[in-house]
Amino acid sequence: MSQTQDLLIEIGTEELPPKALLKLSQAFHQGVEQGLKNAELSFDALRAYATPRRLALVISKLQTQQDDLTVERRGPAVTAAFDEDGNPTKALQGFARSCGVDVDDLETMQTEKGAWLIFRQQQKGAETATLLPDIIQQSLNALPIPKRMRWGDLPGEFVRPVHWLVVLLGDDIVPVELLGVSADRFTVGHRFHHPQPIRISTPMTYAPQLETEGHVMVDYEARKQAIHGQVNELAASLGGDAVINPELLEEVTGLVEWPVALAGNFDQRFLELPPEALISSMEGHQKYFAVRAKNGDLLPHFITICNIASQDPAQVIAGNERVILPRLSDAAFFWETDRKSPLAARQEQLKTIVFQNKLGTVYDKSQRVAALAAIIAQQMGSEAQLAERAALLAKCDLVTEMVGEFPELQGIMGRYYAQLDGEPTDVAEALDEQYRPRFAGDELPQTATGIAVSLAEKLDTIVGLFGIGQPPSGVKDPFALRRAALGVLRIIIERQLSLDLFELISEAVNNFVDILTEDDVRTQVMQYFYDRLRGYVIDQGAKADEYESVLAVSPTQPLDFMQRLNAVAEFRKLEQAESLAAGNKRIGNILRKNEAEQEGLVVEPGLLVEPAEKALAEQVVEAQQALKPLYAASDYAGILNYLAGMRETIDAFFEQVMVMSDDEAVRNNRLALLNQTRALFLGVADISCLQE
Amino acid sequence: MSQTQDLLIEIGTEELPPKALLKLSQAFHQGVEQGLKNAELSFDALRAYATPRRLALVISKLQTQQDDLTVERRGPAVTAAFDEDGNPTKALQGFARSCGVDVDDLETMQTEKGAWLIFRQQQKGAETATLLPDIIQQSLNALPIPKRMRWGDLPGEFVRPVHWLVVLLGDDIVPVELLGVSADRFTVGHRFHHPQPIRISTPMTYAPQLETEGHVMVDYEARKQAIHGQVNELAASLGGDAVINPELLEEVTGLVEWPVALAGNFDQRFLELPPEALISSMEGHQKYFAVRAKNGDLLPHFITICNIASQDPAQVIAGNERVILPRLSDAAFFWETDRKSPLAARQEQLKTIVFQNKLGTVYDKSQRVAALAAIIAQQMGSEAQLAERAALLAKCDLVTEMVGEFPELQGIMGRYYAQLDGEPTDVAEALDEQYRPRFAGDELPQTATGIAVSLAEKLDTIVGLFGIGQPPSGVKDPFALRRAALGVLRIIIERQLSLDLFELISEAVNNFVDILTEDDVRTQVMQYFYDRLRGYVIDQGAKADEYESVLAVSPTQPLDFMQRLNAVAEFRKLEQAESLAAGNKRIGNILRKNEAEQEGLVVEPGLLVEPAEKALAEQVVEAQQALKPLYAASDYAGILNYLAGMRETIDAFFEQVMVMSDDEAVRNNRLALLNQTRALFLGVADISCLQE
Repeated sequence: MSQTQDLLIEIGTEELPPKALLKLSQAFHQGVEQGLKNAELSFDALRAYATPRRLALVISKLQTQQDDLTVERRGPAVTAAFDEDGNPTKALQGFARSCGVDVDDLETMQTEKGAWLIFRQQQKGAETATLLPDIIQQSLNALPIPKRMRWGDLPGEFVRPVHWLVVLLGDDIVPVELLGVSADRFTVGHRFHHPQPIRISTPMTYAPQLETEGHVMVDYEARKQAIHGQVNELAASLGGDAVINPELLEEVTGLVEWPVALAGNFDQRFLELPPEALISSMEGHQKYFAVRAKNGDLLPHFITICNIASQDPAQVIAGNERVILPRLSDAAFFWETDRKSPLAARQEQLKTIVFQNKLGTVYDKSQRVAALAAIIAQQMGSEAQLAERAALLAKCDLVTEMVGEFPELQGIMGRYYAQLDGEPTDVAEALDEQYRPRFAGDELPQTATGIAVSLAEKLDTIVGLFGIGQPPSGVKDPFALRRAALGVLRIIIERQLSLDLFELISEAVNNFVDILTEDDVRTQVMQYFYDRLRGYVIDQGAKADEYESVLAVSPTQPLDFMQRLNAVAEFRKLEQAESLAAGNKRIGNILRKNEAEQEGLVVEPGLLVEPAEKALAEQVVEAQQALKPLYAASDYAGILNYLAGMRETIDAFFEQVMVMSDDEAVRNNRLALLNQTRALFLGVADISCLQE
Repeated sequence: MSQTQDLLIEIGTEELPPKALLKLSQAFHQGVEQGLKNAELSFDALRAYATPRRLALVISKLQTQQDDLTVERRGPAVTAAFDEDGNPTKALQGFARSCGVDVDDLETMQTEKGAWLIFRQQQKGAETATLLPDIIQQSLNALPIPKRMRWGDLPGEFVRPVHWLVVLLGDDIVPVELLGVSADRFTVGHRFHHPQPIRISTPMTYAPQLETEGHVMVDYEARKQAIHGQVNELAASLGGDAVINPELLEEVTGLVEWPVALAGNFDQRFLELPPEALISSMEGHQKYFAVRAKNGDLLPHFITICNIASQDPAQVIAGNERVILPRLSDAAFFWETDRKSPLAARQEQLKTIVFQNKLGTVYDKSQRVAALAAIIAQQMGSEAQLAERAALLAKCDLVTEMVGEFPELQGIMGRYYAQLDGEPTDVAEALDEQYRPRFAGDELPQTATGIAVSLAEKLDTIVGLFGIGQPPSGVKDPFALRRAALGVLRIIIERQLSLDLFELISEAVNNFVDILTEDDVRTQVMQYFYDRLRGYVIDQGAKADEYESVLAVSPTQPLDFMQRLNAVAEFRKLEQAESLAAGNKRIGNILRKNEAEQEGLVVEPGLLVEPAEKALAEQVVEAQQALKPLYAASDYAGILNYLAGMRETIDAFFEQVMVMSDDEAVRNNRLALLNQTRALFLGVADISCLQE
């Protein structure tokens, strides 16, 4: 049982970037954890702490020394180690030298293959304290820091200037010097509440001391929960519910060491603005939380988190109310100005915004999207003009003041302005819906028009960028084509649209006149969709081989693809599935070997010899008849169910019939029979892809 | 996958008894945990919180509903269920009725033993919320509360009046009424810092909100660490180390919700008193922590933990210094007075203190202990008079003022006073050492005199109480005989004393003239020691059967017992051990069957027939010779090692010799041989007790 001690590491810095804080903390955590594992130092638990001014780790029951270990190096065989006079050979001497010992220090080891000389050495485990400096330094170097800072004439660089360093193993300081600061046992409390140093006697008292003495809630998660609870509490006291944007919550948690929520008010009249605009002003500029009434309307209040328990909250609140006023007034001004000219009037302006230098301006894009949206709307059986109109207006809000200030409001403001312009409701809605889904799990467009524009918008972007040879690569996906493609698939599938993706792609391609440089853009893009679809269906619980079996017959309607996929999943549950999959594999191989997979080979009843092949031939004919209506209804499950009934006949065929007969006529006839059999299954999917 | 929610339970009370707080919290924790397990409700983690004013639990990811389950009851066999006309028999009807259903609602189940009628029912899992009230109530009832309080005309009772109750499952209040209070979502902050209610929106924000808003550090362990750290920090700032008595630390943790350490000073002159006296005054009366200089002397400072971050610490400190002064003055006064008369002069007073009404006064006890201590000292080869003197003075400090005020100083003050009286150093030391070991793992007496008195003191108490028929029973052990007995064993064994326990017990018994009512006190007490020894050696890693094998030959010298035990442990590692253990078992059985286990049966060489028995007979004779010196040196390991060599011979004997010969003479001769063989082993231990 090896000795253990608790370990504390704290790095005190100038204010860290709030949005990056959690990532930094987690990376530091993982870095040190990995470092300890690599050094084979065991420990009980590791807790990470993070505030704007510090990153810390407390590791309980850390092994204070590595285990000793024996290293063995195998030398020459005894036979090769000594000459006939029994003197060490060059080989042996060389080996001994390489081990830094005399020949006599080597031992011999008996193996079934004979005796060998080996060098055994007890390697003493190193003291943890001596290993820590490297481990810490390594994990600091590995932190995901956009740009590191070097300051003064200090060695080393970090995301922010480092002011103090605490490293305690048990009750003792570990002599480490990092980033020009050497370790001690003194941390620092809250900037205002307790600027004095705090002496930490032992790692376990670190967090509690900082909390009770230092007024620093050093546990990130606890601080976040405190803010969450305080904001909810205040909102409730105001008779409403807080609007808690998760990103804002994280950011605020990264801004304070001791959170104190305070509420404030703003002038009722601002409530005439769209709530999204108010929320953007409050969150974006001031990091305030908005408050909703039970009916969902905004209330004229906000909640702020300050980093200090003020003696005079009233004054702080007054200050907060003062600073938000101009922000809201700006928003109100934008709202006024934007409404002076209708969206439609802004189309010309779109010519001034480049969408992508090869793909032209946003105006050009709108034109293309309008054309494509119209086609989609038609195919969906909804009004093409509405879709076209929506598409033409879709980007106009980009040139409004409000969206200029708050880009995240694109589409949303479009909706409001379109409504005020008296555009049809569907058109207005579509302007917002075009961007959906905005993120994984986001709502899909509701209205037919919204769907058409959203699909067209995304398809145009995808096709365009593939067309100019700029598909997304690994992490590089500036136009978020991955998300767009997934969005297209989700909309078509979950809204149950029988649209043909390949056809839409082709339409989109046609809209780019003399622009696209790549050939076979269609297939490239289609392939890209198939890859996204693969991920999508596997998330839904489908098996990879099921996906492959359907992909093999490459249906271009996503909805149809899903129906086949479900049929295959059902089919696989049948007891006949396994041997039919095997049978299909076998047939496939035979046909491939004999390049007989081309259509149109006819079966000559007269050439059928064996009973088993006659039986199969009959069943095939029956099946072809029986399945017609099922195909018509694309009842894939029904089809596979029916084909399952052919299992015995097919098995019997392979047991009793030798396909490769010497008589060529007979042989080709049998190949034809197999070809037709296989065709029956391929009408749904290539079930030979199914693994047991 | 069943739904889960976080659960919060908080019971707000009037100040809970600080020393009991942790126990209460743990019991509440276990009670609820058990309740949830019994209800088959799974959860992720359970965290307990405790402050003087609240007990709380936060349980994460608690299943919100029990799993459904199917209950099956087996009815009559089909054959017995219907008569020849196929009508249900009485048996079947009865069964159906007992299930509360019609005969038609029953199903039949095929088993290899035939068909049976069974009743199957889907039992819907209950909502967790409906189960919680009972679970909580049960665990409250089970709390280890010395005396429960009922207050006002409220139903139910608890350790202290309950003022509020929070029970949240997810974000919803669970409608519970406990102890006359109904659950809500409002807790209360620190009595002074934040007396207002705090609204808890969801369980996870409970602790963080109480901390940041309520100034309540609700985590007991964290609070304890905070105090630990603050006290150490202050002590360091005073240039010393804090004297942190674990019990005091726990008690103080149970007294505050927001710990703030403050230091104070007292007059240098008090440093003339024994440090233990000062520490007792500070800890006992004021719950202050004392401070030592690096050289171990006390410093004229103390550290207190207040439950509030005061605006004016200076004033608080002044107050603390004011209240400790009279305490220290008292101690000084005791110190003065006690020194006016020497310890020896206090013996008469001991006649006024009853030790135990049947066992007489402390004076009587001192006399007995003195006699016994003298004997022990003799046997140890140290000075009997010193031991006797020490024993006579041993209890005198009980009648000093200082010990009267601080019982925990008994023995310690005795040492100081004896030194001042000019008693020999050994005597003075012995007065303190007589009480050692005071607790598990405490130091043992060092001086020969101290050892003698300590052993005598304990033996006298144990023998006395057994002698009047008041041995400890289960939990009832008012005179801590268990600890005393273990102490005696530890002293003898770890101080390597070759004392015969049974002999000492006998001596102790003899000291009680016409007092002891029980017969065979000696064996009772010896047995009690054997039981303690069992626990002791097993803690040391010995196996139960090894202990048994030595116990079987009941050595009365604990040290000797240990040597045999170690020898057996070594022996068991030998490859011969197993078959020899078996052999001994076999021999033991034969001898027992033939009541031939009495000594003195002589082996008649003339009567030996088989070569195998001749061989054994020879080896036995050899062994008897060879082992003499080893026995003389009680080299038990050596003996067993030698005997291991007899394995083949013994095995051969049993393979080739039939003990139960029809010829009685031959038979008895063989029994005699086996008897001697066995005697060889029993000289060390009965290895037949060893299990494979």
